[in-house]
Amino acid sequence: MNKHAIFHQAKSHLSYAYDHHTLHVLLQTSKEDDLLISLIHGDPFEWKDIDGRFSWVHHVDVMEKRYTDDLYTHYFISIKPFHKRVKYAFLIQHHQKTYLYGTQGIKEIMDGVLFKTYDLSHYFNFPYLNHEDVMESPSWSKNMVWYQIFPDRFYTDHPKVDWSIETVHNDLQMGGDLKGITSKIPYLKDLGVEGVYFTPIFHASSMHKYDTIDYHLIDPQFGTNEDFKLLVETCHKHGIKVMLDGVFNHCGFLHPMFQDVVKHGTHSIYKDCFFIHEFPVVDFELNAHGKPKRYPNRKNRYETFGFTPMMPKWNTSHPLVEDYLLDVVTYWIKHYDIDGWRLDVSNEVSHDFLRKLRMAARDVKKDTFILGENWDSSLPWLLGDQMDAVMNYDLSVPLWKFLEHQSDIHTFKHDMNRYLARTPKHVIDAMFNLVCSHDTIRIKKRLDDDARRMKIAYLLMFIQAGSPNIYYGDEMGMTGFHDPDNRRPMIWDPKRQDADMFSFMKTLIHLKKTLPLMSIPDLSIDVSNDLLIMKKQDMNQSLVIYVNYQAQPLKYIPDFKDLEILIDSGDLKHPYSFLLGVKHETNHS
Amino acid sequence: MNKHAIFHQAKSHLSYAYDHHTLHVLLQTSKEDDLLISLIHGDPFEWKDIDGRFSWVHHVDVMEKRYTDDLYTHYFISIKPFHKRVKYAFLIQHHQKTYLYGTQGIKEIMDGVLFKTYDLSHYFNFPYLNHEDVMESPSWSKNMVWYQIFPDRFYTDHPKVDWSIETVHNDLQMGGDLKGITSKIPYLKDLGVEGVYFTPIFHASSMHKYDTIDYHLIDPQFGTNEDFKLLVETCHKHGIKVMLDGVFNHCGFLHPMFQDVVKHGTHSIYKDCFFIHEFPVVDFELNAHGKPKRYPNRKNRYETFGFTPMMPKWNTSHPLVEDYLLDVVTYWIKHYDIDGWRLDVSNEVSHDFLRKLRMAARDVKKDTFILGENWDSSLPWLLGDQMDAVMNYDLSVPLWKFLEHQSDIHTFKHDMNRYLARTPKHVIDAMFNLVCSHDTIRIKKRLDDDARRMKIAYLLMFIQAGSPNIYYGDEMGMTGFHDPDNRRPMIWDPKRQDADMFSFMKTLIHLKKTLPLMSIPDLSIDVSNDLLIMKKQDMNQSLVIYVNYQAQPLKYIPDFKDLEILIDSGDLKHPYSFLLGVKHETNHS
Repeated sequence: MNKHAIFHQAKSHLSYAYDHHTLHVLLQTSKEDDLLISLIHGDPFEWKDIDGRFSWVHHVDVMEKRYTDDLYTHYFISIKPFHKRVKYAFLIQHHQKTYLYGTQGIKEIMDGVLFKTYDLSHYFNFPYLNHEDVMESPSWSKNMVWYQIFPDRFYTDHPKVDWSIETVHNDLQMGGDLKGITSKIPYLKDLGVEGVYFTPIFHASSMHKYDTIDYHLIDPQFGTNEDFKLLVETCHKHGIKVMLDGVFNHCGFLHPMFQDVVKHGTHSIYKDCFFIHEFPVVDFELNAHGKPKRYPNRKNRYETFGFTPMMPKWNTSHPLVEDYLLDVVTYWIKHYDIDGWRLDVSNEVSHDFLRKLRMAARDVKKDTFILGENWDSSLPWLLGDQMDAVMNYDLSVPLWKFLEHQSDIHTFKHDMNRYLARTPKHVIDAMFNLVCSHDTIRIKKRLDDDARRMKIAYLLMFIQAGSPNIYYGDEMGMTGFHDPDNRRPMIWDPKRQDADMFSFMKTLIHLKKTLPLMSIPDLSIDVSNDLLIMKKQDMNQSLVIYVNYQAQPLKYIPDFKDLEILIDSGDLKHPYSFLLGVKHETNHS
Repeated sequence: MNKHAIFHQAKSHLSYAYDHHTLHVLLQTSKEDDLLISLIHGDPFEWKDIDGRFSWVHHVDVMEKRYTDDLYTHYFISIKPFHKRVKYAFLIQHHQKTYLYGTQGIKEIMDGVLFKTYDLSHYFNFPYLNHEDVMESPSWSKNMVWYQIFPDRFYTDHPKVDWSIETVHNDLQMGGDLKGITSKIPYLKDLGVEGVYFTPIFHASSMHKYDTIDYHLIDPQFGTNEDFKLLVETCHKHGIKVMLDGVFNHCGFLHPMFQDVVKHGTHSIYKDCFFIHEFPVVDFELNAHGKPKRYPNRKNRYETFGFTPMMPKWNTSHPLVEDYLLDVVTYWIKHYDIDGWRLDVSNEVSHDFLRKLRMAARDVKKDTFILGENWDSSLPWLLGDQMDAVMNYDLSVPLWKFLEHQSDIHTFKHDMNRYLARTPKHVIDAMFNLVCSHDTIRIKKRLDDDARRMKIAYLLMFIQAGSPNIYYGDEMGMTGFHDPDNRRPMIWDPKRQDADMFSFMKTLIHLKKTLPLMSIPDLSIDVSNDLLIMKKQDMNQSLVIYVNYQAQPLKYIPDFKDLEILIDSGDLKHPYSFLLGVKHETNHS
């Protein structure tokens, strides 16, 4: 037995309150070892006299072998401690020997001696399932369908340039506006969208608007605050939620508070609202557009996002900043009834400010959704006190690697199991799943502009627990390299639209909404004769997905008897083809 | 190489902001493997053209092999990222091969290929060292000397029973009071005490006062609120901090809010201030002292501490409870100028309430110290948003096991290294270290009433980073089994006092205050000829501790040349003897 592989930690992704009655416990072990694992658990205070001996009242339950990756197998169990308190340890059976694994390490149990002593100081502790500590995302945010709009490039009745161009850059203002978007809400409703995420729309210098000048004003290029009010009302009328992009890590260089520091230096009352290392604040000249003439890389006299002088970092611990930004957070909820905030560069914002932001937002609207832009493992942000979910690149990366043929089927299986073992079930449902965004290459371009492979990417995302996002235009088969090419104008010309892709996406959305199996977290992954076979199941039925993930045609096709086919790409023998169906059966779990 | 043993996690005990300029990074590996580990790290946004190639600007620094326990060796490094952002991974050299360990696992580097690609999505991320997220305990709370008083049993001019009794029980009220304690503050000052922790003193039914009736009133048995004011003033005059015991997990059965629920049931406005499962609330009769006639074990109709019907658990998420308890927290700081709160059963109190408690306390007194009663690994509580420290049983347990001869010298060494690897350096300094308390057997009794071994226990605690606590009377050689025997009256009779122990304790305290080496975290542990040798060092000197930890006399004694002996037990050859000294030298680190 590889003792070094055995790992558990209380209050982590391996031990969390699923709800205030239920504790999920996982144990990491080496995949090479053939083990039988049980959880020994009980209330720390429940003792009774058994045969003249003061004994701990406990339960022993066998854990389920659940996730295997390249190195580890994770065992899983869900328990409901009656008094909400649990002390627990792991009983490991291996080659006729039994070990107890607890906080002091792994000890062999000789003739049941350890069993009888019950020294609970060796046990892991989940002290209390307090209901207010349970990480709970708004119920509406779970397993819903998002659509991401980049406002300058979606729609307008008054385009400033030819809307059919295919080459764009970030200094190009195309003229997309909120009125235009509002007129297209019925289009989104028809597609089946349930929520729209807008990249920034507040007054800012750049086209992308990530350098805010006025957090209370809709950028005049996009319209007026009244236009936005109408947009939200229209969305809500169509049952669509609205999420804005909150850029609270930094502001724009031209923000009046920063400009005050630029002008008045150490005399500015705002000088500590930023992190200024040296006065005067700037040693570079600006051009007519308010941008630096030269790029002062790594020599900024103040802290910034990246090394961008246009984006000075807020000191969110300063009372003026805190009050100001929290007012912004509540202003758009109170006066415009928005439903969520996506927080830009949220991993660089202090946890402290994120906690205050959550409280402020929830105080005005109890089910406000807080989404973080965290690209890495994000559990320290998902403890219930900060965010409800993150942009789930932890899922995107294994999908990308597999579909780009950077990882083989076995690696993909391991990657997916690692993802599932590390993503607790109470956070997975509200995750913002995505295959591309304004920050990445478009999925179609990533997959060599092959619409068939792009469909597989969306299919594999839609069958995961969480909320899939459609990056505007993907449903029409849009393509594009990295920024700025991924921000081309939305295709409205029917001749250039991919009607087949639209219909495929519509079907996927419909299935996500109507088939609960699409949203359960666990799935099995197998391969047979070069065919990827994924399965999810509950008590009554199984969801089965077959994918020919290779460029070659298949020789062998499985038997689809008893399978109700819900979506397919045509003949499964073709390269990059797929099929999704449901089997009605009684599963015993 | 045992790949399964290799483990790291960002934002954990293996990766934390030591201060807002410094990141500490640790890597777990198997102790069996002979590895060379380096950290490859850099700013995620710092790229430049090197020989026509867009390359990531990074540093490679060798990590130090630091802590070895029974299974693992932990490597350590401290870095100061200039822009406060770090992406990092580990370069592992083993048998002429080099591996990169990152978020996607361990990959062999072939001909430096991975090195050249810099796919930062494989790197761990510490996104930003935000100053307000740094876990920072009040500076006064670090490496100071605490003294714990159990108020009924410390001192009074008017004892209710014979103060020399050696048999006590928890229903016995001895009459210790605040005036008595106040008169003994000069005694504590003389001993060298810097802070006093009082177990509860608010109005309650029991002798131990953990079942509060009135959180704003000093228990009449102990005196008046005015008496307490004088006590605090006296302490402060003598440079001694005051910490009260905050019992916020539960109140007493006789608390008016709970009594209102008992009386009015579902009509009580306080019915949701507790967790009532069934009305009427009680199905048991009370005796004349307000205690249940029979003990309704595990059948309470409401949630309690343990299964104690006398201690109904507060629903701290209820606004009435939150306002009430936070008012208590600030009341004693504002009006009586206390310096800290020790939180009873803090691990069962919600994280949510603990965050609010911290904010409320810090708002009225910036350097209020918040100490948790957590018996287990407590990092989820020590993230900077909840507590400053915990009662450090993580240190007590290895000391107990070793001195009770339950673990041998090698196990002790491993246990101490595991403790040091798991206890980040930014939290260790304020830890409340203890060898016994009102909740455990007294250290002297634990060690068979052997004063020599008891001295070794205190010595080994005092040389650790953190704040050692003296449980009242230990300095006079008091003994006692578990509760209630550990709560005997303080020995004031000079004939029964252990003057030698007092002088030993006074010397230890003096050394803790004057010798900075006593407070650095790392120490080396070795054994030579049955002699335990511990060392701590800085650039200028070494602290050396020798302990004969066995019942047998030693045959071999080392050479003490160049050692300035600061404290010793007499001849080191004797069983259970010890010596602590300082060597002045230039150490190269």
